[in-house]
Amino acid sequence: MNARSKVYVEGSRADIRVPFTQVELSGGEEPVRLYDTSGPGSEPEVGLPALRSAWIAERGTEGARNTQLHYARQGIITPEMEFVAIREGLAAEFVRDEIAAGRAILPVNVNHPESEPMVIGKNFLTKINANIGTSAVSDSIAAEVEKLTWAVKWGADTVMDLSTGKHIHETREHIVRNSPVPIGTVPLYQALEKVNGDPVALTWEVYRDTIIEQAEQGVDYMTVHAGVLLRYVPLAAQRVTGIVSRGGSIMAAWCLAHHQESFLYTHFRELCEIFAKYDIAFSLGDGLRPGSIADANDEAQFAELRTLGELTHIAWEYDVQVMIEGPGHVPMHKIKENVDLQQEICGEAPFYTLGPLTTDVAPAYDHITSAIGAAMIGWFGTAMLCYVTPKEHLGLPNREDVKEGVIAYKIAAHAADLAKGHPGAQAWDDALSKARFEFRWQDQFNLALDPDRAREYHDETLPAEPAKTAHFCSMCGPKFCSMKISQELKEYAEQGKLTTREFVEKGMADKSDEFAASGGRVYLPVVDTK
Amino acid sequence: MNARSKVYVEGSRADIRVPFTQVELSGGEEPVRLYDTSGPGSEPEVGLPALRSAWIAERGTEGARNTQLHYARQGIITPEMEFVAIREGLAAEFVRDEIAAGRAILPVNVNHPESEPMVIGKNFLTKINANIGTSAVSDSIAAEVEKLTWAVKWGADTVMDLSTGKHIHETREHIVRNSPVPIGTVPLYQALEKVNGDPVALTWEVYRDTIIEQAEQGVDYMTVHAGVLLRYVPLAAQRVTGIVSRGGSIMAAWCLAHHQESFLYTHFRELCEIFAKYDIAFSLGDGLRPGSIADANDEAQFAELRTLGELTHIAWEYDVQVMIEGPGHVPMHKIKENVDLQQEICGEAPFYTLGPLTTDVAPAYDHITSAIGAAMIGWFGTAMLCYVTPKEHLGLPNREDVKEGVIAYKIAAHAADLAKGHPGAQAWDDALSKARFEFRWQDQFNLALDPDRAREYHDETLPAEPAKTAHFCSMCGPKFCSMKISQELKEYAEQGKLTTREFVEKGMADKSDEFAASGGRVYLPVVDTK
Repeated sequence: MNARSKVYVEGSRADIRVPFTQVELSGGEEPVRLYDTSGPGSEPEVGLPALRSAWIAERGTEGARNTQLHYARQGIITPEMEFVAIREGLAAEFVRDEIAAGRAILPVNVNHPESEPMVIGKNFLTKINANIGTSAVSDSIAAEVEKLTWAVKWGADTVMDLSTGKHIHETREHIVRNSPVPIGTVPLYQALEKVNGDPVALTWEVYRDTIIEQAEQGVDYMTVHAGVLLRYVPLAAQRVTGIVSRGGSIMAAWCLAHHQESFLYTHFRELCEIFAKYDIAFSLGDGLRPGSIADANDEAQFAELRTLGELTHIAWEYDVQVMIEGPGHVPMHKIKENVDLQQEICGEAPFYTLGPLTTDVAPAYDHITSAIGAAMIGWFGTAMLCYVTPKEHLGLPNREDVKEGVIAYKIAAHAADLAKGHPGAQAWDDALSKARFEFRWQDQFNLALDPDRAREYHDETLPAEPAKTAHFCSMCGPKFCSMKISQELKEYAEQGKLTTREFVEKGMADKSDEFAASGGRVYLPVVDTK
Repeated sequence: MNARSKVYVEGSRADIRVPFTQVELSGGEEPVRLYDTSGPGSEPEVGLPALRSAWIAERGTEGARNTQLHYARQGIITPEMEFVAIREGLAAEFVRDEIAAGRAILPVNVNHPESEPMVIGKNFLTKINANIGTSAVSDSIAAEVEKLTWAVKWGADTVMDLSTGKHIHETREHIVRNSPVPIGTVPLYQALEKVNGDPVALTWEVYRDTIIEQAEQGVDYMTVHAGVLLRYVPLAAQRVTGIVSRGGSIMAAWCLAHHQESFLYTHFRELCEIFAKYDIAFSLGDGLRPGSIADANDEAQFAELRTLGELTHIAWEYDVQVMIEGPGHVPMHKIKENVDLQQEICGEAPFYTLGPLTTDVAPAYDHITSAIGAAMIGWFGTAMLCYVTPKEHLGLPNREDVKEGVIAYKIAAHAADLAKGHPGAQAWDDALSKARFEFRWQDQFNLALDPDRAREYHDETLPAEPAKTAHFCSMCGPKFCSMKISQELKEYAEQGKLTTREFVEKGMADKSDEFAASGGRVYLPVVDTK
């Protein structure tokens, strides 16, 4: 029997079926249910079933404001909201209220009925995004669809398709049709391809048509760098690393060349109308985010953030859902200021941050430099963390890099959930720790974020099957074990033979004999490393 | 020419030669000097040269108090103190003062003259320790010496030899003779071997003889679990993971069996006299540290900490240097309390923590779960971070695991140094970021914490030699680059053509033509991932 399996929890109607990974445990322990992003599994050429079709059809899609925010504000709990409520273990009314307040988004394009609803907001589980996409030097559509499936298997909550080069439309079509999670894009990349890579040649019309093309395909959220204003560009000129955001530098070049505010900014209300129709969420891009420790929290960055706050409130006028993108490269002591300012300026709209990387000195390990910052910024209130792979700054992530990035970010997100006290987050840690303490090795592997690697590492030192039921670890060998003495201690205490009061208030010299007698020879200590 | 080489800075006398890794840069940039722990390199069978012999001989070793703390309190700046002052880029008098106050230790057994002096204290660079050692299931001395050399190559500031099983004495002899960094041990492990693994059979005499044996070999600091008092043991009985420290559970078993306070506690002053003679530093062990998120910051842990505070002040009476060990497994929001309490209770003696791991759910990735906690606790004032490898909880670290652990902890330590504002820490980040911005690829690799892997990852996508001088990355391809537009922007600004005031206060319509004219066609954006 496979100890990990997918189970579904049914909601108020038969077609609301919420997936979980159920982990069966030994020793009479209750099974543990974990959040599951992997989807029902698909044949790449067929695509996924259209889970939400009926829900979308019931509401109709002819209105101008088909957004979850619109329904939430009207007091309506949609099937999508009920779905995420079950998924998060919270009340549906709470979900509706968070969305209505703009503190959370539920990104679901009406043309992406295959997606399993999820919510992004600081009062929910911290989410993570994985970036994939073809480029000029690597353009296999099949490889990208496989990366998508691989990313959601390991826990990616959303995936951004950042394809450039050829076949952008076709690649995206395959990705959306096979994605059980929301898909995000940066439409500017495709628009730029349409004008042969010359940013100065970009126009509102080309951009608008690109948005509609992607909207029709079912993109759930789009990064829009509408906060790069002409007067902010010089602020970035004296930085150590200038403008490192692709979108930011495209718009900066456009603004300078035309000496005008960008069409993203001047046509923002028209964008809102389009987004409202499809229920696309804004991911307001931070085109001036810092690209190095030296540039963190500077005036260019925060000036843009103030404009993003202004745009957030405009989007809300149209019932369009909004989240805000954030840095980047930030040393630990400057991280909290980012969240506090963003929350204040943007009316608590969800924050969606890249890392941040807490040092610049470790290329090839930026999944780690940034997981540190990601965990902290998640604790401070960031709703979604954009992953960084070991290849950041160096090359294109392959399949293994995608997994390394996702795992590092699942760790950061869960550490954040523990620290912010998300109800139920610690149950997972407790179940695994208890399995560890009781030498239920298989349970420990099955509960692990990466059961395969946990098992593999254990087997490297002690490959024999009996070692997986043994009451010791390879660190100690069969003779000693600190866990074992601790367990004896616990049993002793449970028999009422050991209480603090007794030890503190009484002499209890007899207890020592009793302990020696009951435990016999005391086999000992050595699970830990010092 | 190798761009990375070892250089020495001479102090006030010819035999004070402080090593640095010097990185030569291109583009007219000044070379960068990095802290270097790798030592002069040794033939394992010969051992390292006895760098400090003359300094030790000059002072004489017949006195009862041969400690750096003793000299510091007398106002004497030893050659060792001058050495670390040069190493840290700080004044020798400041080093002396920190040691005299007990806020820092300089661990140097008079019998380990091969070591290059280093300092552990919150007002210095954050240090990291790597654990190695043979065990019952893996006992090659040569393999452990090789791990030592490998660990210091990647930046381990101290190494603990946690050998158990056979050949403990011989293994340690080889390790100490070949170590350019201070060596720590947990003498209790060897003492336990001497009584055939039965903790109840341990005696003060066996322990004392073991201490002296190791002191004679040159061990620089020793973990002593003297804070596990009889009345604290029941506090740990109801935990999810009981007592996870080997040393802690050995002493708990001893206390319970004998119904007495441990010989480590009752003979602590005798220990101090021995430590003072050899200048061994105490690393007061946290035998009751938490082994799971559930058990963090509980009464058992903090009760022991209060006893460690008491013992710290006793050691200081004997001029013995002291640091304090800390957790363990701690969720992010409970980390700061650990440092604050430790600093208050232990008179600012250096804190030396294992991780902490910020979640229990990711066995096989605990170098990452713990690097998050390590970076934070380092920022909050921990002086040295004990590494965790990917094999933690699962098996014995091999050579590659040792490297992964060291690198993750160098990242955590450097991120902490940036956050706490160590003078000079950011220069490394700035140099690397500037190289990145200017497409000096070789400089970027040479400045990286792990030049080999940075180069390897880059070459995976763009292996050709010209790609290392190209003004673009594989993420963008040759056509676009946000770094490039940023550089044009910078040049433009340097020519006085772009200032914030101009843009804000004037109309400046002509500036757009000027920009278009000066930049020609604008090649564009795409270094970053969104």
